[in-house]
Amino acid sequence: MSAAAASGDGPVRVGLLGCGTVGQAVVRLIGEGGATIERASGHRLEVARVLVRDASRARPGVDPALLTTDPADVLDDPSIAIVIEVMGGLDPTLGHLRRALARGASVVTANKQLLSRHGPELLAAAQDAGAELRFEASACAAIPVIKVLRESLLAAEITAVTGIVNGTTNFILTEMARSGLAYGTALERAQELGYAEADPTEDVGGADAAAKMAILSSIAFHTRVHLDDVPYEGIDRLQAEDIEQAAALGFVVKLLGVARLVDGAVSVRVHPALVPAGHRLASVAGPDNAVLLESRATREIMLVGPGAGGDETASAVLADVLSILGTHQGSFLHNALADAGRPIAPVGDVRSAFYLRMSVADRPGVLARIASVFAEEDLSIRSVVQSGSGDGASLVLVLHAGTERRMAAALERIRGLEEVRGEPVMLRVLGSGEGG
Amino acid sequence: MSAAAASGDGPVRVGLLGCGTVGQAVVRLIGEGGATIERASGHRLEVARVLVRDASRARPGVDPALLTTDPADVLDDPSIAIVIEVMGGLDPTLGHLRRALARGASVVTANKQLLSRHGPELLAAAQDAGAELRFEASACAAIPVIKVLRESLLAAEITAVTGIVNGTTNFILTEMARSGLAYGTALERAQELGYAEADPTEDVGGADAAAKMAILSSIAFHTRVHLDDVPYEGIDRLQAEDIEQAAALGFVVKLLGVARLVDGAVSVRVHPALVPAGHRLASVAGPDNAVLLESRATREIMLVGPGAGGDETASAVLADVLSILGTHQGSFLHNALADAGRPIAPVGDVRSAFYLRMSVADRPGVLARIASVFAEEDLSIRSVVQSGSGDGASLVLVLHAGTERRMAAALERIRGLEEVRGEPVMLRVLGSGEGG
Repeated sequence: MSAAAASGDGPVRVGLLGCGTVGQAVVRLIGEGGATIERASGHRLEVARVLVRDASRARPGVDPALLTTDPADVLDDPSIAIVIEVMGGLDPTLGHLRRALARGASVVTANKQLLSRHGPELLAAAQDAGAELRFEASACAAIPVIKVLRESLLAAEITAVTGIVNGTTNFILTEMARSGLAYGTALERAQELGYAEADPTEDVGGADAAAKMAILSSIAFHTRVHLDDVPYEGIDRLQAEDIEQAAALGFVVKLLGVARLVDGAVSVRVHPALVPAGHRLASVAGPDNAVLLESRATREIMLVGPGAGGDETASAVLADVLSILGTHQGSFLHNALADAGRPIAPVGDVRSAFYLRMSVADRPGVLARIASVFAEEDLSIRSVVQSGSGDGASLVLVLHAGTERRMAAALERIRGLEEVRGEPVMLRVLGSGEGG
Repeated sequence: MSAAAASGDGPVRVGLLGCGTVGQAVVRLIGEGGATIERASGHRLEVARVLVRDASRARPGVDPALLTTDPADVLDDPSIAIVIEVMGGLDPTLGHLRRALARGASVVTANKQLLSRHGPELLAAAQDAGAELRFEASACAAIPVIKVLRESLLAAEITAVTGIVNGTTNFILTEMARSGLAYGTALERAQELGYAEADPTEDVGGADAAAKMAILSSIAFHTRVHLDDVPYEGIDRLQAEDIEQAAALGFVVKLLGVARLVDGAVSVRVHPALVPAGHRLASVAGPDNAVLLESRATREIMLVGPGAGGDETASAVLADVLSILGTHQGSFLHNALADAGRPIAPVGDVRSAFYLRMSVADRPGVLARIASVFAEEDLSIRSVVQSGSGDGASLVLVLHAGTERRMAAALERIRGLEEVRGEPVMLRVLGSGEGG
């Protein structure tokens, strides 16, 4: 980490610029994850000051004494080693970040518009001051695309980055495709559900996606890509009829960011595109983001997840802070493993839903007897399908979630029923909230 | 990086244990990625020695003078800072790694069976010696699950890791579901295509997936999970009938690794499971791997990609080597961006396939005139669908790949045709090898 951050044995003091949804989540996650962060990095984090416009308004979970309306309290305080920028905008934000970097503070930012316009300048300022500039949260929130490009795939030669990098538009397109809605109606639904802002221009017009693609393609191709280098079109002129026609031809319409090497040059664009229904980007639905990274060595790696959200963005910000602190990975992992950590759950306690298929003799009362075994073991039947008849009848049951112990006991009793032929087949069912 | 690796100004010397498919790919990628690695880390990598069983056999791309059959040449040479283990097996591999770590060499390994049994011991040995132990390639090859868990999601509280972590079985299950094949026939096809080994026991029996889940759950839950803590079942007794029945009920059968927190305890299992057809793991097909990471802060993040392969595994090994060397991320990125790097491709040169919808007057010869415009612009028509008739007819065309320049010219001419009403709608089509 930078000299400023490493000085002294006290906590590492961080300053926040902005305290909206993301800022409040950062403060909360620093509190909740503090012990883990300290174990992993050897440093305790302390929120020192928080710049806001109106210090009189309460922010849940944030000590009002930390709030200030004077930028100097965060930017010029030499005890603040890391400045986290979650206020957005270009002005005065750019000036703030220049000022913090100039005195050697490291900066973590989630500001895609700023970075896609002034990234190289800010990186140079950081380098000159011996500070760090990190910006994972600026593209796709908690999906760690930048880390994967910068670190995991650094030596792989990336040939293409194709992404669904705007959740608002992906939600709208998913609604249009599923329900045949017109664009305007789908946008209204997105606004009702909080997936689109009151003024959705940045998202639906493609500018938000273009900024993210500028950042991602810069890192993927080790090349300066400015927002102005990325031609973009949005989805605001798409018609329901084209989505229908595309579906009839076997395609799904997505707003894609497409960055590729073309004869050694970098091509980056954002536009609506027809994606073959079998393509892995086609199944990315709702407000999710996804980025497909292609390289010769690794073929296609895709990262999928929520591309927005306060907690998600704050999580990426914290990962950047951690990477600035540096982690003693070996000793952290060793300590975690040497302590044994959490206990291993007894297998019998683990719950899941179950699928069961058995051959039965189709006699009156057989289903009643089987059903009563499950009832007595507290296992509830979700569906039963019988096929065939006579001695070769087949019974397929799906059960609601229960423990392995109960299921083993039920199976033991079912094997003993005289109508049951051979060994029943039992498989688990992956369900929401109850695992596999 | 470790003291041993950092000493002197010369190249960082790496030794290889093993030189099969993965080892040869590591040597090749070090050659090809050398300049990037040096720019990013400030260190030049040099392959110093390669331990093999038979030094007389030629390995493409590997200098025969580097080959040795004496483990001491790699393990005990103090000039070798990093030992890369790609020989597999438990014995004598475990002893080799202990020996290398004991003298302070850092170790990168792709050996899941070894790590899932002896991980904590090896991490302790590394810590005692001030060396690093890295093992990204041991789980899912180039998919950077371990880095994401260790770094990006370190402060997020992971609640579940659910994965398709064996490509052989996922290929077999995909084939069984698609073609209704019996297990044995699908296995034979996997063997023919190189997705299954001659002795497939480790894969189809679930042991391979169990080892990976032991490693992933250790890191996700900061808890020691031994291979023996992971009960596993394979797919070798699955019947085509169950896959059919599952499909009829709206499920896809997958071999899942499921790791969850259950009342504060860790539960890790591997078994075939019914996955709802709409679930994001259901669409992971063929030999791909996928890991779904759930945490409170980030909801669900999924990583998908090839979970095996020589180049893929070697790419993960190199990422680990880079993380040991450490990267001067700021200055690397700044240099890359300050240099401007590659040129930006002129938009007109970019190729993609196109979708076009237009309203036309349905008169004799209209399609001929439109088709001849495309022909003259060297754009080839893949499909045409006409609906309606009279003045309100609608024409939907899909064109094979061509440049933006040609398409713009064609569109300009088509707008001028008297049969064409209003503005044609043009969308790009994402296609393999020609981008969006």
